[in-house]
Amino acid sequence: MQIAIVLYPGMTALDAIGPYEVLRSMPDAQVRFVAGEPGPVVTDSGVLVLGATHSYAETPAPDLVLVPGGSTGTTAAMADRALLDWLRQVHEHARWTTSVCSGALVLAAAGLLDGLPATTHWAVQTVLGRLGAKPQRDERIVVTGKIATAAGVSAGLDLGLWLVGELHGREVAERVQLIIEYDPHPPFDTGHPSKVSPEVRRSAQRQVLREGVTPDALLAIPKLAWQQTLDRVRRRVSR
Amino acid sequence: MQIAIVLYPGMTALDAIGPYEVLRSMPDAQVRFVAGEPGPVVTDSGVLVLGATHSYAETPAPDLVLVPGGSTGTTAAMADRALLDWLRQVHEHARWTTSVCSGALVLAAAGLLDGLPATTHWAVQTVLGRLGAKPQRDERIVVTGKIATAAGVSAGLDLGLWLVGELHGREVAERVQLIIEYDPHPPFDTGHPSKVSPEVRRSAQRQVLREGVTPDALLAIPKLAWQQTLDRVRRRVSR
Repeated sequence: MQIAIVLYPGMTALDAIGPYEVLRSMPDAQVRFVAGEPGPVVTDSGVLVLGATHSYAETPAPDLVLVPGGSTGTTAAMADRALLDWLRQVHEHARWTTSVCSGALVLAAAGLLDGLPATTHWAVQTVLGRLGAKPQRDERIVVTGKIATAAGVSAGLDLGLWLVGELHGREVAERVQLIIEYDPHPPFDTGHPSKVSPEVRRSAQRQVLREGVTPDALLAIPKLAWQQTLDRVRRRVSR
Repeated sequence: MQIAIVLYPGMTALDAIGPYEVLRSMPDAQVRFVAGEPGPVVTDSGVLVLGATHSYAETPAPDLVLVPGGSTGTTAAMADRALLDWLRQVHEHARWTTSVCSGALVLAAAGLLDGLPATTHWAVQTVLGRLGAKPQRDERIVVTGKIATAAGVSAGLDLGLWLVGELHGREVAERVQLIIEYDPHPPFDTGHPSKVSPEVRRSAQRQVLREGVTPDALLAIPKLAWQQTLDRVRRRVSR
């Protein structure tokens, strides 16, 4: 099956590479990394470059689509007409349309999450709500129809394994989990906002905001949602 | 602090990208991806390309070095004279020399693990022993002096967080864990060989072997170890 993982400037690498490492070990997985044009894509750290192997135009009918989030690039991705049009188009025939972290905001900007339960990085759950989805703050993975959204960054590993289980059954998923030795032993236990002190939460929020999801960007999002909604209405009307 | 993450053809992407995503969020982290020459590096899936930003020669004194493993590329990396020479050189002054997965075999080939406890991917623990290290099969992270080795693939996330804790203290590590929402909820519990059925273990081992760590490559390793050991002795003698 063809798996299309979206790359865009300012994305968070682990959002894509976590599920990639899981999905690529499935039998018959044909993974490709897609962008507007093939070529190098600089991630949100500014120091890691990932390669897009195919354009959207070369990838008209993937079986599985995955959209990563990003601390500096998501707002631009939410306004990238070529990406949003492609997502709407491929979603029609895909078996699964998926996101990790703030990738859910891109799906929402494409109008794929209207009125639907979904999750995203804890720091932007409110934004997901403003875009018309129903944020599920405490869920690691939210499945609705053929859309699966995952929480922040590292949640893509859990999403990937869940998808392998759905597509190939439990035994294959168990095998893939063993291959990547995914037996997590984090030395601390602060991976969810409910588990940390107010100080750690505030400093993490400050760092996330400083890195890109700025108040200005957040304010711009409702306008963008308006624009997207009007676009969709216009397309529907003019059919 | 300068963090040098090694890239080589046929490496496993998540081995590097997991700890990268953790370490880059440390205060004062300056991450670079190093290889023989800067440029694109194709990982073991054959479909994901990562960018090396600096050569070994341009990186003479990193504070932290990380060597990833790989299903198809590790054997060649273990025989890459330029990489092994560079590792021995930078290890002298680095604060931490680290590996994920079969990256430990590369550290061993460089002679950095002689007689020392270490860990690696479960499927190649025996090879690590043949190379002169003392494999610790049940440990997720093994620390000995200023060398820290992690178990397979996904263990790099745990290693990264542990390193942040060592370098910047618990509160910073807790913040980074929250930023990447590392609150693992794998849908299955088969991330360690002790947790799976014999069938799952055998099929995982077959898949790992099929992908690159072939019996031939395994047989070549003791010869390589010999060669490396003789080289080291020769260098020591001719000082």
